[in-house]
Amino acid sequence: MQLLFLGTGAGMPSKQRNTTATVLKLLDERGTFWMFDCGEATQHQILHTTLKPRKLEKLFITHLHGDHIYGLPGLLGSRSFLGGDEPLTIYGPAGIKAWIEVTLATSKTHIKYALNIMEIEEGIIFEDDQFIVEAKFLEHVIPCFGYKVTQKALPPELLIEKTDALGVPRGPLLRQLKEGHDVELADGRIVKSSEVTGEPKDGFQVTILGDTKFCESSILLSKRSDIVVHEGTFDQETAELAGLYGHSTIIDAANVCKEAEAKHLIVNHISARFMPSDIKNMIAQVAHYEFPIYVAEDFAEYDWSSGLLKKIPRA
Amino acid sequence: MQLLFLGTGAGMPSKQRNTTATVLKLLDERGTFWMFDCGEATQHQILHTTLKPRKLEKLFITHLHGDHIYGLPGLLGSRSFLGGDEPLTIYGPAGIKAWIEVTLATSKTHIKYALNIMEIEEGIIFEDDQFIVEAKFLEHVIPCFGYKVTQKALPPELLIEKTDALGVPRGPLLRQLKEGHDVELADGRIVKSSEVTGEPKDGFQVTILGDTKFCESSILLSKRSDIVVHEGTFDQETAELAGLYGHSTIIDAANVCKEAEAKHLIVNHISARFMPSDIKNMIAQVAHYEFPIYVAEDFAEYDWSSGLLKKIPRA
Repeated sequence: MQLLFLGTGAGMPSKQRNTTATVLKLLDERGTFWMFDCGEATQHQILHTTLKPRKLEKLFITHLHGDHIYGLPGLLGSRSFLGGDEPLTIYGPAGIKAWIEVTLATSKTHIKYALNIMEIEEGIIFEDDQFIVEAKFLEHVIPCFGYKVTQKALPPELLIEKTDALGVPRGPLLRQLKEGHDVELADGRIVKSSEVTGEPKDGFQVTILGDTKFCESSILLSKRSDIVVHEGTFDQETAELAGLYGHSTIIDAANVCKEAEAKHLIVNHISARFMPSDIKNMIAQVAHYEFPIYVAEDFAEYDWSSGLLKKIPRA
Repeated sequence: MQLLFLGTGAGMPSKQRNTTATVLKLLDERGTFWMFDCGEATQHQILHTTLKPRKLEKLFITHLHGDHIYGLPGLLGSRSFLGGDEPLTIYGPAGIKAWIEVTLATSKTHIKYALNIMEIEEGIIFEDDQFIVEAKFLEHVIPCFGYKVTQKALPPELLIEKTDALGVPRGPLLRQLKEGHDVELADGRIVKSSEVTGEPKDGFQVTILGDTKFCESSILLSKRSDIVVHEGTFDQETAELAGLYGHSTIIDAANVCKEAEAKHLIVNHISARFMPSDIKNMIAQVAHYEFPIYVAEDFAEYDWSSGLLKKIPRA
């Protein structure tokens, strides 16, 4: 799993930061990627990555402000034009479906794949054998969701050196053992699955929040997450503006993580008032928290592997 | 007057060309600029120019395909956010008003300036003491306009060396002479306006066409224009695709200009199939026409001065 930030700005695009779009790359896990929000020119940002729009499987919209949705129609159209025929599901607040439909109809955009638009409420909005996604209302000036993605525990690994030592022949028996079933060998011996498999591994939990002020819902949703993506539109010196516009400071974001006992924080949705040179100062304001905190820039990518989050150097 | 091309691609953005937006800079003439079409990320392109969104006075939409309108809501919102309070008028085909209104309402975008959206028909859609704008339906797969902008004849220049020689005092009499009125001097002599003014100068005429196949309407609208901006999505080798999709080749564009007896052609809306290295070949296909032909790239700017069109080298 990787998190790739396509847009880390707030409100309007700037030369430094585009409007919001956050990609959860699940290429290893399910051959697809998911996206959270889709500000204008997200498809332009994708042109500078290895992402293929046809691999976009799910798109989660936090709220309906323009800097989170204006890139949607263009991306939906281009995904079709580029030959994408896999279904795509969009999850978002009430109003998203009508707007997408009127926009595609007005522009005579014919989507050639199955497009499913789900207007959601709080709670579990998706579950399959790999993942659960839960949505929760945050506190912003308009209805805004946070999303928690929980990867289910991974099946225990089959320990080939043990099955070899016990003389289990390579073939279908191995799959049964891996799936938790005990098997009988040709010579009558029983091999127990638990003898030849490792420990089941926990999946990851990543919580991606939309625009919000500091609130209890953020803490509840983020509870013990491996990674929290939280907006930090403002900093300590501009905290008053955060209060005024329903946004957070980087300190609010860190406090959410601390109270949620989350393990890593990535801050996005940075006001254009902060120049690249100001980011150091923002980070200094949260240097005393006991978990790693990153301020994402556009195209920053973070790899999650064996319980560790690591920033990937850009090619 | 300058023509600045912010997006010269077709259908989808590519790394080389954004979707359509063409700026008619009238900063010298009226302190504003006008824009023709507004594809996604036009506001992003503007960030790389000296244009100020508040100076955008009129926006003409040729047709409702996404690559010509998806940048509109973001630009309208940012123009307000950046403090623009001058009125803005949008002209376009039926459907544009409802879409803009539902988009701004859905995204809770509050525009603080007077926004006037006019759904137009063929004919003269705007006229003041400086300019006339005429719209005409072209031939595309959906209703699509071309726009002709005619600058009215400029008032003749006052020849100061002549008024000085005749002893006309500097002051209000000069303005009367410049405006075409004869005046009486203190000593009783009559000075005729025609004695002390130069020749009236023709204004320019620029025709900016939307997506279209080769058609009679394009020729009629472009008649004797100083500059025609015509799409050239395809070239000689891909002419069949042009026919299929209601588009033109660069040769169609040149033929429109030739039959219209227009003076300069700028081709835009170039398919992403053509790499920068292919453009030379496109231009070679129209080398035998007897008027200058340019293929615009993103950020290409052309200056119109004293009847001459000149490409401005990019800073």
